Amino acid sequence: MKKQVLFILLLLATYVHAQTDDAKQIEKIYRMALTEGKAYDWLNHLSNQIGGRLSGSVQAQQAVEYTKAQLDSLGLDRVWLQPVMVPKWVRGTPEFAYFETSPGLSTNVPVCALGGSVATPLGGLKAGLIEVKGIEELEKLGTEKIKGKIVFFNRPMDPTLISTFQAYSGCVDQRYSGAAEAAKYGAVGVIVRSMNLRLDDYPHTGSMGYGDTPVDKRIPAAAISTNGAELLSATLKLNPNTQFYLKQNCKQFDDVESYNVIGEIKGSEFPDEIIVVGAHLDSWDLGDGSHDDGAGCVQSMDVLRLLRKTGYRPKRTIRVVLFMNEENGLRGGNKYADMANNKKENHIFALESDAGGFTPRGFSFDCSDANFERIQGWKKLFEPYLIHLFVKGYSGADIRPLKNDGMVLAGLRPDSQRYFDHHHAENDTFEHVNKRELELGAASMASLVYLFDKYGIVPPQKIKG
Amino acid sequence: MKKQVLFILLLLATYVHAQTDDAKQIEKIYRMALTEGKAYDWLNHLSNQIGGRLSGSVQAQQAVEYTKAQLDSLGLDRVWLQPVMVPKWVRGTPEFAYFETSPGLSTNVPVCALGGSVATPLGGLKAGLIEVKGIEELEKLGTEKIKGKIVFFNRPMDPTLISTFQAYSGCVDQRYSGAAEAAKYGAVGVIVRSMNLRLDDYPHTGSMGYGDTPVDKRIPAAAISTNGAELLSATLKLNPNTQFYLKQNCKQFDDVESYNVIGEIKGSEFPDEIIVVGAHLDSWDLGDGSHDDGAGCVQSMDVLRLLRKTGYRPKRTIRVVLFMNEENGLRGGNKYADMANNKKENHIFALESDAGGFTPRGFSFDCSDANFERIQGWKKLFEPYLIHLFVKGYSGADIRPLKNDGMVLAGLRPDSQRYFDHHHAENDTFEHVNKRELELGAASMASLVYLFDKYGIVPPQKIKG
Repeated sequence: MKKQVLFILLLLATYVHAQTDDAKQIEKIYRMALTEGKAYDWLNHLSNQIGGRLSGSVQAQQAVEYTKAQLDSLGLDRVWLQPVMVPKWVRGTPEFAYFETSPGLSTNVPVCALGGSVATPLGGLKAGLIEVKGIEELEKLGTEKIKGKIVFFNRPMDPTLISTFQAYSGCVDQRYSGAAEAAKYGAVGVIVRSMNLRLDDYPHTGSMGYGDTPVDKRIPAAAISTNGAELLSATLKLNPNTQFYLKQNCKQFDDVESYNVIGEIKGSEFPDEIIVVGAHLDSWDLGDGSHDDGAGCVQSMDVLRLLRKTGYRPKRTIRVVLFMNEENGLRGGNKYADMANNKKENHIFALESDAGGFTPRGFSFDCSDANFERIQGWKKLFEPYLIHLFVKGYSGADIRPLKNDGMVLAGLRPDSQRYFDHHHAENDTFEHVNKRELELGAASMASLVYLFDKYGIVPPQKIKG
Repeated sequence: MKKQVLFILLLLATYVHAQTDDAKQIEKIYRMALTEGKAYDWLNHLSNQIGGRLSGSVQAQQAVEYTKAQLDSLGLDRVWLQPVMVPKWVRGTPEFAYFETSPGLSTNVPVCALGGSVATPLGGLKAGLIEVKGIEELEKLGTEKIKGKIVFFNRPMDPTLISTFQAYSGCVDQRYSGAAEAAKYGAVGVIVRSMNLRLDDYPHTGSMGYGDTPVDKRIPAAAISTNGAELLSATLKLNPNTQFYLKQNCKQFDDVESYNVIGEIKGSEFPDEIIVVGAHLDSWDLGDGSHDDGAGCVQSMDVLRLLRKTGYRPKRTIRVVLFMNEENGLRGGNKYADMANNKKENHIFALESDAGGFTPRGFSFDCSDANFERIQGWKKLFEPYLIHLFVKGYSGADIRPLKNDGMVLAGLRPDSQRYFDHHHAENDTFEHVNKRELELGAASMASLVYLFDKYGIVPPQKIKG
C-alpha cells in the first residue's frame, strides 16, 4: 500500500511540477508578446508599405520577399520558398453601377466585381432586376421570369447567430454559386448583397465560381454594399421595372508562379514530428488585408520568434507556413499538403489563424476524442489570459488539406463580432487592428504550439495485428 | 423510499423545466436585442446629436432631457428626474504646450487640462522639467530638486496585465494626486502621461484632486499624449534643461443643479425588492463619450425595454438609473444611495455597465459567497452567448454607494483591450462602437437582471435571536 501511495504522490508531484513549468513558460510567452512582439510592426509593413496582396499581383510577390527576409533575420534553421502556380485575376478600373427608376432618374450604388467574375460588355450591362433571397428561388421563378434579367441575391446574414462565421456560412452560397445558377435560367448578370452584418457603403468582394458553365455562358457578378442592397430592394418594391446598370472590366489571366513562404526550427528530440503554424499571405485587393489575413501571417511568424526569444528549444520541428492563394484557389494549401504527402512527412499538429486579429477567445479543434480530451486538460493554463473557448470544430482552409485521422488541426478563434464589417472590403485596413489584440492572439498560438511540442499528440488507436 | 425518489424526481423535473424556461427567455432577449435593439440608435443621438456631456454643461442637460423623453416613450410605470447639485468645471479654449531644448527651438506636444485643474497664468507657464515614474520619487528628490519645476509623471500602464483596468489602476494615482503631491515640494505644474496603452497623439483627460492643498498653492495639471510623453522623455535624457511651456484657461464654477434620470417597472409580486441597472450619463468633454459611458446608458435603458418587449412581467421592481457626474464628483451615485437609505428602500441587486461598449465577456460580482455560488449555477445559461467570465470583483462607481452586506452588486465586463485607447480622449466617439457588440452587452445585462428578478437573492445569514 505504502509504495502505491508514494507512487501516486510522485506522479502527482510530477504533474503539478509540469503544470507549473507550463504556466511559467506560457507567462513568459505572453509577457514577451506584449512587450517585445514583432507582429504589429510586421503588419504595419505588410499593410501600409505593400497593401492588398491578391494572388499573382506585384504586391503578393513583394509580400513573399518581405516575409522571407524577415524570417531569414530570425535565425531559424531553414527558410525557403515553395513554388506554386496561382490564378491571376485582375479587377481593372473601378466598377460603376446605378439603378434607374425612370429614364434619366438614376442613383449610383457602390459595387465591386466578385473575384473570378467576367467583365461586362465594354459599354456596360443594363437590364431589369429580379430580387431573390436565395438560389432555391431560381427554380421556382424559372427561365420565363429570369431570362434577360440581372438576378439580385439579397439574403442578409442572420444577425441572431452569435458566431458571425456561422452567419457567413449561411449566406455565402449566393456569392459563390449565384452566377452559375442564375446563368442556367438565362440571367445576364448577378448582384449579390455584401456579406456584411453592418449597414454601410462598402461592397465586399470574395471568390465566386462558374462551375461547369461554358465560357460563353458566363455572366458578370458583382457585390453591392448592404446600404445599396437595402435601397435597391426598397426601390424594387415601389418600381419592379427598375433598370440596373453595371460596368466592370475585370479579367482572368493565365496562371503565374508564386510561393508559399516557409521557415522552420528543427526539433531537438523528434525532428520528424512536424508542427505547422500558418496563415495565408494573399489577400483581396480592395483593402490592405490587415485582418484577412495579414494578422494571421504576422502572428504565425511571431510564434516561432516568441518560442525562440523565451529560450525554449523545441523537441519537435516547428514550421511557419505563409500560404499563397487561399482567397481564390487554395493552391498554396494544396501544394503544401502534396509536398508533405510526397515526402511522407509526419505532421502531428497544424494551427491556422485566419479569422482576424481581434482579441483571442480560444481555439477550435478538428481531432480525435482522445486528443480533444487531453487538450481540455490544458484549458486551465489559458484562463489567466481570458482564453475560454476550447471546442471541436473547423480549423482553417489552408491546413485542411493536411488532414488525416491521426493528427490534430486547430484554428484560432478571435472575437468575431467586427470581423465581417471589414472582410474582403476597402476598410480591411491596418488602423482597425489593435496592437494588443493582435499580440494576445500570437501569444495564445505560441502557447498552444508549445504544449503540442512538449507533449505531442495521442497517437491514433492501433488495430492489433 | 419510493416517496423520496418521487420527490427527488419532481424536484429535478422542476429544476430542468426552470432551466429550459430560463434558456428560452434568454434566447428571446438576445434575439430581440440583435434584431430590434434600440441601444445603437439612442447612442447615435447621444453621441452625434448631443456629444460630450460634462457635468453642468448644456450637453449634459440635453442628455437628461433626451433620455427622460426616451424612457417616457417606453411605457414604464414611472419615469422621473432626481435633482442633484454637480460641480461645473469648464475647459475653456484649447490648451497649448511645447517644449524648448534651446531658445527658439521648440516642439509642440498635444496636451489637455486634467478635469478639476486650475488654469495657468494668462500668459502661460514656462519652467524646467523633472521626470518621475511615480509619486514616491518626489520625497527622494525633495524640494531642492523640484521647486520651481514642472513635474513630469511618466509611469506607463503595464502592458503585461491582461486586464487593462488593472493596468489603469496601477497608474491613475499620478493623474489624480500628482499635482497635490508635487505642490508640496514647490512644483509649479504637473504633466502626466496619458492613461493609454497605445502610442498615439491623443491626450487623455480625467479627474484630479487637490486634496487639502490651499487654493493659492494649487498648480495646473495637464495630460500629455503617450507619443508626446515618449518624445519628451527622450529629449530630457539628451537635454535635462529642456523648458516646458503650458497654457490652459480652465475654470471651476459654482455647483449647478442637474439630475439622475430614473425609470422603473413596478414588480408584480415583490414590488419592494428593487433591482437597479445603470450607467453614468455624464462624460468627459473631449470626445462624445460613446464608450464612457454612453454605451452603458443605452444598454441599461434597453434592459427594461427588452424585458418588456419579450413579454416578461417582472416580479420585482426594476429601475434604470442614469447617474449624473460619475467622472468628476460621483454626486449622482451618492445622491441616489442617500435617497434609497432615507426611504429605507430594499435594493437587492444593482448592475452597472461602465467599461465600454465592447463584446461582453462576463460579469464581476461584489456579494456574499452564498450568492456567488448561486450565480455560478447560471453560467451554463450564458455559454451559448460566449459569456464565460463570472468572477468576484469590482462592480461600478455609481452603484457602489448602495452597497450593503445583503445585496449583490455587479459590473458588466466587456473585452477591455481597446478601452483605454479611447478612454477620456477625443477619439471616444460613436464610430468606435460596434452595433452588435453593444447589443450583446445589453442582452447579457437583461439576461442577468431577468435571473435576479426571477430568483431573487440569497438573504444574508440571520443571527439567531
